[in-house]
Amino acid sequence: MDAMHLQDLNTPAALVDTARMQRNIARMQQRMGSLGVAFRPHVKTTKCVAIAQAQITAGARGITVSTLKEAEQFFAAGIKDILYAVGMSPPKLKQAAALIAQGCALKIIADSAASAAAIVAYARQHGVPFEVWIEIDTDGHRSGVQPQGDELITIGQLLHQGGPATLGGVMTHAGSSYDLNTPEALQAMAEQERSLCVLAAERLRAAGLRCPVVSVGSTPTALSAQQLQGVTEVRAGVYVFFDLVMANVGVCSLEDVALSVLTTVIGHQSDKGWAIVDAGWMAMSRDRGTQKQTRDYGYGQLCDANGQRIEGYTLTGANQEHGIVSRSGEADQNIAQHFPVGTQLRVLPNHACATGAQFPEYHAVNGQEVGATWPRFYGW
Amino acid sequence: MDAMHLQDLNTPAALVDTARMQRNIARMQQRMGSLGVAFRPHVKTTKCVAIAQAQITAGARGITVSTLKEAEQFFAAGIKDILYAVGMSPPKLKQAAALIAQGCALKIIADSAASAAAIVAYARQHGVPFEVWIEIDTDGHRSGVQPQGDELITIGQLLHQGGPATLGGVMTHAGSSYDLNTPEALQAMAEQERSLCVLAAERLRAAGLRCPVVSVGSTPTALSAQQLQGVTEVRAGVYVFFDLVMANVGVCSLEDVALSVLTTVIGHQSDKGWAIVDAGWMAMSRDRGTQKQTRDYGYGQLCDANGQRIEGYTLTGANQEHGIVSRSGEADQNIAQHFPVGTQLRVLPNHACATGAQFPEYHAVNGQEVGATWPRFYGW
Repeated sequence: MDAMHLQDLNTPAALVDTARMQRNIARMQQRMGSLGVAFRPHVKTTKCVAIAQAQITAGARGITVSTLKEAEQFFAAGIKDILYAVGMSPPKLKQAAALIAQGCALKIIADSAASAAAIVAYARQHGVPFEVWIEIDTDGHRSGVQPQGDELITIGQLLHQGGPATLGGVMTHAGSSYDLNTPEALQAMAEQERSLCVLAAERLRAAGLRCPVVSVGSTPTALSAQQLQGVTEVRAGVYVFFDLVMANVGVCSLEDVALSVLTTVIGHQSDKGWAIVDAGWMAMSRDRGTQKQTRDYGYGQLCDANGQRIEGYTLTGANQEHGIVSRSGEADQNIAQHFPVGTQLRVLPNHACATGAQFPEYHAVNGQEVGATWPRFYGW
Repeated sequence: MDAMHLQDLNTPAALVDTARMQRNIARMQQRMGSLGVAFRPHVKTTKCVAIAQAQITAGARGITVSTLKEAEQFFAAGIKDILYAVGMSPPKLKQAAALIAQGCALKIIADSAASAAAIVAYARQHGVPFEVWIEIDTDGHRSGVQPQGDELITIGQLLHQGGPATLGGVMTHAGSSYDLNTPEALQAMAEQERSLCVLAAERLRAAGLRCPVVSVGSTPTALSAQQLQGVTEVRAGVYVFFDLVMANVGVCSLEDVALSVLTTVIGHQSDKGWAIVDAGWMAMSRDRGTQKQTRDYGYGQLCDANGQRIEGYTLTGANQEHGIVSRSGEADQNIAQHFPVGTQLRVLPNHACATGAQFPEYHAVNGQEVGATWPRFYGW
C-alpha cells in the first residue's frame, strides 16, 4: 500500500507529530532519571494505548488515570500498575474491586475520613486488598487534606488498621503551577509541592504508619523541580503533547507541540480578513486556556500543512463546525488568495487534553506523511 | 427486569428528562405550524437517532447536519432529507456524492463562486446531481454572501447553469441572536434574518433563477419571529434540550432544560465551602457561554438528583475530572453535611451541544427512574 498523505485525510483530524512526541517523552524520562525518581505518566491526556506503550518503553513505571474506564482499557492492554488519581467515591468501589480481582495493581486515593472509612468497610465486607494513597493539598487549588492537619493522621490510622485495605503512600498535584510563568515561580512551586508532600509522609511515619510512596507532579513542576529528595515518583500528563498553555507557562516552545488539528479552508469573508475553516470548537474544544495568559492564541495558533507556524494568524472565533482564521492587527483582505478554498492548515491547541478528547483517533504523522491511526477512547 | 434508577448509573452520566424534551419539541413544532413553515431540526445538538426520530414523529420535515458523518449515520437510520449546513469544500465532494448515489436527498451549501465552481466541475465530471443552497450572511457573524451583493447572482448563475448540479434555494443562520436578551431585540433579529434571506431569494428570482427554498433559523430567532412571509422552512437545534445560555437569552426557563449531568460528591474543602464532584470539564465541556451573559452560572447550575434546582449553588470550577461546587456569596462551611460523600447531584449545562458531545450515550430519565440508553456518536 502506498503511504497516506495529509491530502487523504478527512478534516478536521487530530495529528500527532511522532518525532516531537518522542522527543517530549525522552526529555521527561531523562529528567526524572537524573532526579532519581520513578515516572508514572498521566494517560488522561491521550487515552491511547499506543502512546502509553511508548511512554513505558521509554522507562515509565506504571500509569496514572483519571477514570476507571481508563484503568479498564489500559489494564486490558496489558498495563497492570495503575493509579486512579481522583478521590474514590463509594459507588465506584465495586468497579475498582473487579479490576483488582482480575490482577490489576490498582491504587486508589482518599482525602477524607468519610471516604477512607467507606473504603475500609467495603474492603472488609468483600475481602478486597485496596491499596490507598492519601491525597495531600499542597497548593489550595483543588482537593486533598492539609499536610499539617489532624485529618491526615486520622485517615492514615483508618487505613493502617483497615486490613485487607492498606495505606500505600501519599500523593499530590500542584495544579496551580499552570497559573505561573517564570522559572523562579515554577521552581518555588515545585519545591512547595515536594516539601509539603514529603512532610505529610514524614508525619504519617512519625505516627507509626507505613508510607512507602511519595508521589508528586504536574507537567510544569516536573520540568522545574531542582531536587526531589524524599519523593519516590513523579506524575505528569500533558508534557507528551505540550500545548499553547504550556508554552505560555514557559516549559516548552511552540516547536515542541506534538498535537495539532488538520483543517480545510471552506470559505472567506475577505472584507473582514477572515478565512473560514472546518475546525470549530467541536474539533478544538471550548478550552480557551490562553485567554488569561500573557499571550492569547484564541482557539489556536495557525500553521501550514507541514506544521510551520504562520506568525500572527490564529483561530480567532469558533462555532461548532466553523472556525474563523484571522491575522492580528490589520485585516488581511487578501486572505482568500493566501488561503484559497480547499487549502489544508494545522492549528495548535490551547489545551491538548481537551482537544484530543474531541477525536476518536489520532493520525501519527511525519511531515506530510501519515502513518498509523491510533484509536483513543472516551466516556466513563 | 426491574426498572433502573439513578443510583444504578456510573457517574458522570448525561441525563435527558424526556418529559421536558417532548415539551420542547412540541412547542417548537406547534410554533412553526402556526407560522406556516416547515421545520428542519439541526441534529448536531444531539447526534442521536432516537431523538431525531422523536422530532420527525412530531412533524419535522428532514434534518440539518453539521458534518457528513452525521449525514451518513442518520441516512443509515432511514432519514433521507438532509441539509449539510456547513460550506462545502472540494475534498468532501466525493463523500457527499456517495451519499447521493445511495439515495440520500442531501443538500449542500456554497457561499463563494470558487466553491460553487468546484461543485459544478465535480458534478459534471462525475454526473452527480448536487442540490446546492446558497448561504446568505444576514448578520455578519460568520459565513455567507451578502444578500445585496453581486457574488450572490454570480453563484446563482453558476449553479443554475451547472447541470447536473442545481440551485435549490438560499439559507441563513442568524447566530448573533445568541448575544441578545430582550424580546424586542430578538424579534428585530428574526425579522432581519427573514427579510434579508427573502431579499436574496427575490434577487435570484428577478435574475431568472429558480429559488424554491428559503431556509432560516436559530433557536432564539425561531422562537421570536412574529411572521415568516417568504420563508419556506426554519432550522433550529438546541431548543430540543435548551440550556443556561438559552435561559439567559430569554427563550426558555431553567425548568425547560432537558439535559443535565448526573454527578457524585467525592470530597470537600469545608473551610472554603467547596464540595468536590466527579463532573469536571471533561463531562461539562469547557463551554462557559454564560460568562459574558447577564447571569454567569460557572460550569453549571446545581440541582438535586431529582432535578430540583438548588438556588445559589453552581459548579464554580472544573479540572478534567473534578468539579468544584460552591455557593454564591458567603462560603457554605457546612457543605460536607449538606452534600456528603456519595451524594448524587445534577448539573444543568451552559451549552447543551457542547456538553452532550462529551458523552457516548444519554440516559432517558423520568424523575429518578432511568429508561432507555440512547447512543450518540462523535467524530468526523
